[in-house]
Amino acid sequence: MQDLLDYIDAHRDDYIRQIQRACQQPSISTQDIGIAEMAELCRTMLGEVGAEARIIPLEGGNPVVFGQIDGPSKLILNIYNHYDVQPAEPLDLWASDPFAAEVREGRIWARGVADNKGHLVARLCAVDAWRKVRGDLPLTIRFIYEGEEEIGSPNLERFVHDHHALITPADGCVWEGGGRDFNGRIRLSCGLKGICYVELSARGANTDMHSSRATIVPNPAWRLIWALASLKGPDERVLIDGFYDRVLAPTAEEEEVLAALPFEGESFLQTFGLDQFLLNLDGLPLKLKDMFQPTCTVCGFESGYTGPGLKTVLPGAAMVKLDMRLVPDQDPQEIFQLLRAHLDRHGFGDIEARLLAAEHPAKTALDAPLVRAMQTVVRELYGHEPVTVPLTPGSGPMYPLCQAIGIPAVSGPGGGNPDSKIHAPNENMFVEDYINGIKGMALLFDEFARS
Amino acid sequence: MQDLLDYIDAHRDDYIRQIQRACQQPSISTQDIGIAEMAELCRTMLGEVGAEARIIPLEGGNPVVFGQIDGPSKLILNIYNHYDVQPAEPLDLWASDPFAAEVREGRIWARGVADNKGHLVARLCAVDAWRKVRGDLPLTIRFIYEGEEEIGSPNLERFVHDHHALITPADGCVWEGGGRDFNGRIRLSCGLKGICYVELSARGANTDMHSSRATIVPNPAWRLIWALASLKGPDERVLIDGFYDRVLAPTAEEEEVLAALPFEGESFLQTFGLDQFLLNLDGLPLKLKDMFQPTCTVCGFESGYTGPGLKTVLPGAAMVKLDMRLVPDQDPQEIFQLLRAHLDRHGFGDIEARLLAAEHPAKTALDAPLVRAMQTVVRELYGHEPVTVPLTPGSGPMYPLCQAIGIPAVSGPGGGNPDSKIHAPNENMFVEDYINGIKGMALLFDEFARS
Repeated sequence: MQDLLDYIDAHRDDYIRQIQRACQQPSISTQDIGIAEMAELCRTMLGEVGAEARIIPLEGGNPVVFGQIDGPSKLILNIYNHYDVQPAEPLDLWASDPFAAEVREGRIWARGVADNKGHLVARLCAVDAWRKVRGDLPLTIRFIYEGEEEIGSPNLERFVHDHHALITPADGCVWEGGGRDFNGRIRLSCGLKGICYVELSARGANTDMHSSRATIVPNPAWRLIWALASLKGPDERVLIDGFYDRVLAPTAEEEEVLAALPFEGESFLQTFGLDQFLLNLDGLPLKLKDMFQPTCTVCGFESGYTGPGLKTVLPGAAMVKLDMRLVPDQDPQEIFQLLRAHLDRHGFGDIEARLLAAEHPAKTALDAPLVRAMQTVVRELYGHEPVTVPLTPGSGPMYPLCQAIGIPAVSGPGGGNPDSKIHAPNENMFVEDYINGIKGMALLFDEFARS
Repeated sequence: MQDLLDYIDAHRDDYIRQIQRACQQPSISTQDIGIAEMAELCRTMLGEVGAEARIIPLEGGNPVVFGQIDGPSKLILNIYNHYDVQPAEPLDLWASDPFAAEVREGRIWARGVADNKGHLVARLCAVDAWRKVRGDLPLTIRFIYEGEEEIGSPNLERFVHDHHALITPADGCVWEGGGRDFNGRIRLSCGLKGICYVELSARGANTDMHSSRATIVPNPAWRLIWALASLKGPDERVLIDGFYDRVLAPTAEEEEVLAALPFEGESFLQTFGLDQFLLNLDGLPLKLKDMFQPTCTVCGFESGYTGPGLKTVLPGAAMVKLDMRLVPDQDPQEIFQLLRAHLDRHGFGDIEARLLAAEHPAKTALDAPLVRAMQTVVRELYGHEPVTVPLTPGSGPMYPLCQAIGIPAVSGPGGGNPDSKIHAPNENMFVEDYINGIKGMALLFDEFARS
């Protein structure tokens, strides 16, 4: 493999220019900025590494950019990335222009470099290096670039449905991200939690009133408080009937993996100013809860007067954002229906519930060939055992794109670091991590083709 | 009495100039604007009607203006008003300058004219008229003008303590306001609810976090929700041990008065866009709850992300404003201690509770001589039976200034109207209501002196 690694090192400046090129094109889905231009750039860059590429429009959404390079064997590897990024605001907190992609102090600084243009481009560079050094790829590769990941992938399931033959069958899918943990070890994730994000709202009078009228006028803030208290008590057990019915217990292997996982509890507590973890848990029970238990989280609550001092007001409206992170095999649409039924059954039919986002959880078996191949690559390239986790607590469209159509998925090597500042000002990726990401992917083509 | 009434009518333009003079001097306690100037003007105006007047400084607060006119009998009547007003903002919603005190369409338009400079000045004009027509007043009158009513009278209890001999004994106290109800009938109020206003706050991590961490990191919004749900359930019964211990049941007379009270339920519901009153109450039970039951009201709740769409955040902090309106003989300090004890006993020792305002409820017997005298004056002047209520749901310093030192209190005649827009833009008082307020007070001197 040394020939490949040497080539990548020799062309490191070219590859840095490629990541800068991708990051210099803004592509903010929330603000509808630069989406068409970025899709076009993706098609161009795919073409430059030899892929047959096209832009697939999605009615009412941002297009998917699709590329394919056919290989000599029947083995097919899908690669999922997204070309959209988060907004760059607040701009005044950036040390350099978020779309200048400046290289400074060993890092590339840009909105989207870690989430996830750096990964997207590294994989293209890996193909480039392979083809320059070895000629034809040893397997077929498909590139699936989404333009709506940062707004919850509202149209990806429809894309999969409409273009089923284009992306299946496949023997594996390298998921969008990947990176180092606090200890410098590469973390491989084999799954994602799902999400059911709901806005609850209640109304009282058609205006805020003097609080003395609380004797006779209903208070929408109290309505939401009582409804929420019926959903979950201080023991953290969610009380919605059927909520846990589809929750899978961890397998013996998963539990073993989890037990062996490093976990810096003390430094975590210290960093975030906490005395203890939730319910005073520790050790394996804490890890199990973290990875295999769903949540029910109040993300926001707004009602009435919240400024300094006192204002004696009876609010006319109240609103809550509720985020339920789901684990396999919970179904977000079903969970939403169970929530609605719970509210109705408990006398809260007056409370409106709106589903703002729904994503299925997804999980790949830890012994899938793609996972094994990725672990081998990490050992070879970094000289250490990767931290392989069955699930990460974040969410994404892994279910429709992989699990639902029988494709194992795992995150890629290299790229992110614990200080990458994803979604925040001064997002960055270390140049070395980026280069290693290219190398890791090039090694994977070989390793997976031999599996 | 016709001589007095005729004199007042003949000098109506002079008296309108007096109310304009008082309203043209801003005196906004919250913003510390014009307080010293207004106190000085009060002293001047008191002197002009023959009172011995002085400004009594209150350390760390706005001064009380005190005046006295001795009469021939031992009978003493206190008059309570406040010379401070609410801020005038939002200024762009006023049809004329809030401190121009323009007379237009039969009304005087000014910040503070209804709350409560119009009442303050009407009472001075009543003294003026009496003295011009009759010579010496038939009783001793004391004027107690507070400069901090609009910020919760934080120093009035101390004033009463330090100047006890100045304001006691007294046979009655005419309270600050008074006015017409929706049916045009004069409303006399014999009491006020108390208040215990508390800010509750909870803390989680030292920053908002990604909501996926809700598996292991405590959520302060949930802490407050659970704590609040332990305070009151959907049946509206407050669950704090001892909360109701001092609540006085209404007397048979009070209940009778209440049963006879007009109540425009349908128009109230329609105006405020409601289908029904709280707990679907109606008739006497609704009136009893309104007047004689304390409340526990969430005035505001703030935590996490409350903007449009979704943000998956685990809040680092949560805050609630809680307003408890108290009825005789609840004690706000004791209620605050009971609340703290309740939180501690129910596992919410981590929730901080700050007392932002505390006022005792106060109530005068409906058959007190001052109440009877005021009713007689209303019948004589307006030709109708006043609506006499045992309590109004608002609050004020009636307890320290009257009830605690054994002085019966009742609101005055005339002045306010249901569209007076107190605390709001375009505050106003009808000129006729103002003039009637002068007449009513002049008649009261006579009526009360004969009681």
